[in-house]
Amino acid sequence: MVYYDAAETLSRVEIERLQLERLRASLKQAAKSPFYAKHFAACDFDPASVATLADVRRIPFTTKQHLRDSYPDAMLAMPLSEMVRMHASSGTTGTPTVIYHTQNDLDWWASLMARCMYMAGLRRTDVFQNMSGYGLFTGGLGIHYGAERLGCLTIPAGAGNSHRQIKLLTDFKVTGIHIIPSYALYLSAVFAELGIDPKSLSLRIALVGAEPYTEETRRRLEEIYGIKAYNSYGLSEMNGPGVAFECQEQHGMHVWEDAYLAEIVDPATGEPVPDGELGELVMTTLGREGMPVVRYRTRDMTRFLTEPCPCGRVHRRIDRLHGRCDDMLIVKGVNIFPMQIERVLMAMPEVGQDYLIVLERDGYIDNIRVKVEIRDEYFVEDMRQLGALQKRIAARLRDELLVTPKVELVERNSLPKTEGKATRVLDMRGNGA
Amino acid sequence: MVYYDAAETLSRVEIERLQLERLRASLKQAAKSPFYAKHFAACDFDPASVATLADVRRIPFTTKQHLRDSYPDAMLAMPLSEMVRMHASSGTTGTPTVIYHTQNDLDWWASLMARCMYMAGLRRTDVFQNMSGYGLFTGGLGIHYGAERLGCLTIPAGAGNSHRQIKLLTDFKVTGIHIIPSYALYLSAVFAELGIDPKSLSLRIALVGAEPYTEETRRRLEEIYGIKAYNSYGLSEMNGPGVAFECQEQHGMHVWEDAYLAEIVDPATGEPVPDGELGELVMTTLGREGMPVVRYRTRDMTRFLTEPCPCGRVHRRIDRLHGRCDDMLIVKGVNIFPMQIERVLMAMPEVGQDYLIVLERDGYIDNIRVKVEIRDEYFVEDMRQLGALQKRIAARLRDELLVTPKVELVERNSLPKTEGKATRVLDMRGNGA
Ligand SMILES: [Zn+2]
Ligand SMILES: [Zn+2]
Repeated sequence: MVYYDAAETLSRVEIERLQLERLRASLKQAAKSPFYAKHFAACDFDPASVATLADVRRIPFTTKQHLRDSYPDAMLAMPLSEMVRMHASSGTTGTPTVIYHTQNDLDWWASLMARCMYMAGLRRTDVFQNMSGYGLFTGGLGIHYGAERLGCLTIPAGAGNSHRQIKLLTDFKVTGIHIIPSYALYLSAVFAELGIDPKSLSLRIALVGAEPYTEETRRRLEEIYGIKAYNSYGLSEMNGPGVAFECQEQHGMHVWEDAYLAEIVDPATGEPVPDGELGELVMTTLGREGMPVVRYRTRDMTRFLTEPCPCGRVHRRIDRLHGRCDDMLIVKGVNIFPMQIERVLMAMPEVGQDYLIVLERDGYIDNIRVKVEIRDEYFVEDMRQLGALQKRIAARLRDELLVTPKVELVERNSLPKTEGKATRVLDMRGNGA
Repeated sequence: MVYYDAAETLSRVEIERLQLERLRASLKQAAKSPFYAKHFAACDFDPASVATLADVRRIPFTTKQHLRDSYPDAMLAMPLSEMVRMHASSGTTGTPTVIYHTQNDLDWWASLMARCMYMAGLRRTDVFQNMSGYGLFTGGLGIHYGAERLGCLTIPAGAGNSHRQIKLLTDFKVTGIHIIPSYALYLSAVFAELGIDPKSLSLRIALVGAEPYTEETRRRLEEIYGIKAYNSYGLSEMNGPGVAFECQEQHGMHVWEDAYLAEIVDPATGEPVPDGELGELVMTTLGREGMPVVRYRTRDMTRFLTEPCPCGRVHRRIDRLHGRCDDMLIVKGVNIFPMQIERVLMAMPEVGQDYLIVLERDGYIDNIRVKVEIRDEYFVEDMRQLGALQKRIAARLRDELLVTPKVELVERNSLPKTEGKATRVLDMRGNGA
């Protein structure tokens, strides 16, 4: 097994020693910013007092709202003139969140991204097409700099223009791509129109991220393109892509623990959950000098995978995301994420594109009803067949959710849409649900 | 006066000595590519035989067609695995032209671009917003890497989304921008709608390029935004932006002669024109290792400005572009560029957005007729006033062109458009004109 960086195979003890050393430096650096000076003072926290990694828990979380309140630059730990890059969230209304980087920060980010790509099997001899929009969105420049750092021949294709994408993929014998899952599915239809089998390309590896998608979609993409697809996790507050990434085991994403301190907490109490249990991912930058961020609540729900990874990397893995905290539904005391339901439905060939989750209250009892769009060819007149399908879907959902939903089969295009986008959850339980 | 690079103030003798040294190395490097191996062999040219800069004239030109014929990689002088970036022309039909870069090439390009920006007055303390589309178009990443190299806080805004552009310009006290002239004019209208005076911004400097525009448009932009606007010249075959750039004299663009060998030739004969005379710019890369290009016919018409520049830089300046060779019209034996006509018209407040140049043959005599759209407020019923305006336009055009055109005033929206884009020249002279 070969690795990009010696840091990947430090022992657990060594990683944690490195984390502690970097955490102390990072908190000291953070304290230079107006925001953290106040934030630390408000809870009587002194960065010099940190003796163990657990000491970080004495610091209150940083939230998206804190970032907004710090607009435009109250979280800077160094003078603005030292910054060479800025990324901002895309909203034109409301206050954007802004992340700044020094040249050292960009170098560090590029090397973390290169490490991810190397882990997925890409090498400097690969031809890599980045099909992500560039600009303020971190997915474009983030992956671009990583690919160049690794030494791939990098094609900055950008988003859209499918015919040109396909011409580039074909003519330059592209072996690696960065692509959004929904676009990868769309592009496969364009390939079909052109009578080109995507399997005939030189393509080996896809980096896939930037929007939630299911394991089934991954397998479908791998099948259509004849490739391996690797999941990427990142968020602009922690640079962007390059935070956690799958190794060739394709089972959970290694968090680069020499660059980030990751915690998983109960989103309600903020207390750490036991290893292996679901909770909200909280992250601290360990290597960013321009704008350190401490205990950032990502709102992303995941869990640590506790078994050691056969790839030899000691950095802990997080499970694929279970959704956003804000999306979590509580039904009969059980936590349910719409993503879990989507995963089950999309694995069944009879199911179409849409579904709707309806939460109802029957007296004091919560119920979950799932309306499922059935593909035309399966929407037959035979009631017995439909009844059997309905039962099969209900059983699979019960296995996943641990509660039994009511399943209702509906025809194509009969579910409500809001401005072209499907509505996935309808909570009819009234307030206090 | 301060300079970014010692190379800017070498003496003429030193620059030419450096050019000769680099030319020899570059031609030797080029000879390693399949294309130039053949190209040099076909004319019995041996790179080792080069003793003076003039010896380069023994090599036949490289044309756009040669680049197309070399698709995808016959001009590479090093293995494909050494390349880390590719840019391609955007056409989806026809063969694109492709330029490859090694990491050294990208570093060299970024430093040339940083040198341009420094010359225009930008420093590492500036906040720089790049309003150019990213991706395969070289203007985006080319300027971006230069700005980061210089150490500016670089905002990768990308193209479009005017309200966001204005929010960024305002909130981040942006001092420098890269913008396309037509978009700068459009954006000024959005500022007006929002009731913001662009002069109230922190903006000092604009880098302007990527599409032809006149001196009058430059002055108008400077006036509207209260800034200095600097002209940029570049083409993807020579990397992209960073080939030639204006100093603070704003009179001609210094060609970085330590990086490029520039010639100006008669487009018909290919022979050098005397210094100061108009001709086609021909360029040779002196520092690119991955894909050297030798004596590339840019099709751009310009001339060397022969006077020494007060800024102290010895690198020769080229005049603002007079148009593309392919656009050159010959009327009564005189060379005319549509750009010259545009320049005259756009300086007159009575003239609207559109004009049409019609070439006619009357017996054996060529005539040039210019149909000029007049702004509503000037399109009055008073025939005397219109007649006077007509004469004034004709006189100014005669001064510029040295032939007397017939001028016809027309109302707004009465000129033909091809798919939304104005048609500028209509040649009615039949073949052999
Ligand atoms: Zn692993
Ligand atoms: Zn000068």
